[in-house]
Amino acid sequence: MEAFEAIRTLLAVRSYQDKPVPDAVARRIVEAGRLTGSAMNAQPWHFIVVRERETLRRLGALASSGPYVAHAPLAVVVATSKSRFAVSDASRAIQSMMLAAWADGVGSNWVGFGGLEQARAVLDVPAGLDLLAIVPFGYPTRAVGRGQKQRKSLREVAHLERFGQPLE
Amino acid sequence: MEAFEAIRTLLAVRSYQDKPVPDAVARRIVEAGRLTGSAMNAQPWHFIVVRERETLRRLGALASSGPYVAHAPLAVVVATSKSRFAVSDASRAIQSMMLAAWADGVGSNWVGFGGLEQARAVLDVPAGLDLLAIVPFGYPTRAVGRGQKQRKSLREVAHLERFGQPLE
Repeated sequence: MEAFEAIRTLLAVRSYQDKPVPDAVARRIVEAGRLTGSAMNAQPWHFIVVRERETLRRLGALASSGPYVAHAPLAVVVATSKSRFAVSDASRAIQSMMLAAWADGVGSNWVGFGGLEQARAVLDVPAGLDLLAIVPFGYPTRAVGRGQKQRKSLREVAHLERFGQPLE
Repeated sequence: MEAFEAIRTLLAVRSYQDKPVPDAVARRIVEAGRLTGSAMNAQPWHFIVVRERETLRRLGALASSGPYVAHAPLAVVVATSKSRFAVSDASRAIQSMMLAAWADGVGSNWVGFGGLEQARAVLDVPAGLDLLAIVPFGYPTRAVGRGQKQRKSLREVAHLERFGQPLE
C-alpha cells in the first residue's frame, strides 16, 4: 500500500479475527518502530512483543480503555526513557508501527490511558522507564470502511502563513 | 512508495534544492497530518503552512537547532492545544506528514528545540496553544542514501513477552 494511502485510510481497529499475525509481519511492525527517527537520534524506546494469550488477557484486564487487548493475537507494549523528547519520539514510532501493520492488512489501536503502570510488573519493565502505550494488532473482524474518518475540516486546522488565515 | 519502504528509508533532510514544493504536494502533506488518529479523536493540532521567504528566514533565525529552515521552500509549523495527549497526537501527525512527503520525494526534519516560543509572534499563534515543531520541507540537494541509518540493534530495543527476553 502506498504511504499516503496508508496514512489516509488508517483507522483504529478494536476487534480482531482469531488468526495469528505471522512472525514476519510482527517483525516488520517492530522494525518500523525501531527505524523511526528521534530527537538527536536518541531512540528512547523499547518494544515488548506480546503473543502469549495469558499475558494479553492480563494486559486487557488492566487497560481500562482497551479491554480488547485480551482478544488480540499480538500486542506491542512501548516503554520509553524519561528523557525530554521521549514521548514525542515514541509516538512517532507508534505511528510508524500502526502504518506498517495497516499496509499489511493488520489493524491496531493505541491503548494508553489507565492501567499502564500496573502492566509494569506483568512485563518486568524496569523502574527507569515509563510505559507509554499498549498497541494491540490483529486482522480486523469487519471490512474496514477505508477513509471514512471523522476529522475536523482543513479550514479548522490549517492556516496559511499566519494563524487564522485560511489555507483554502 | 510503499508504506514500509517509506518508513524504512525516511531520513532527516536539512539541505534543500531551490525548487518549490508544488501546491498539490504541500496540500497532501497537510492532509496527512489532518487525517492522523489521536486520543479520543481530539485532533488537538494546528498546521501553519509557511511559504513566504521572509517568514522562513525569520523562523530559521529563531530556530537554534534548525537554521536551515531559512532555506527551505516550505515549512509546516505545528501548534497544539495544552491537553494531556496533545504532544503524542501531534507527534504522530508530524510522522505522517514526514512520511507522506518522503513518498513524494520531499525531505524534511523535525525542528523543535530552542526558539519556538519566539515564533509565536511571527505566526500570530494564540496564547492558548503550544508550539511543538517547525517542519521544513524540500527536495534534497543530495541523493539521499536510502536506508543508511544509525539505529540501535533489534536486540537493544526489542523484547519478547517480557522486558529483557530477546526477540531474536
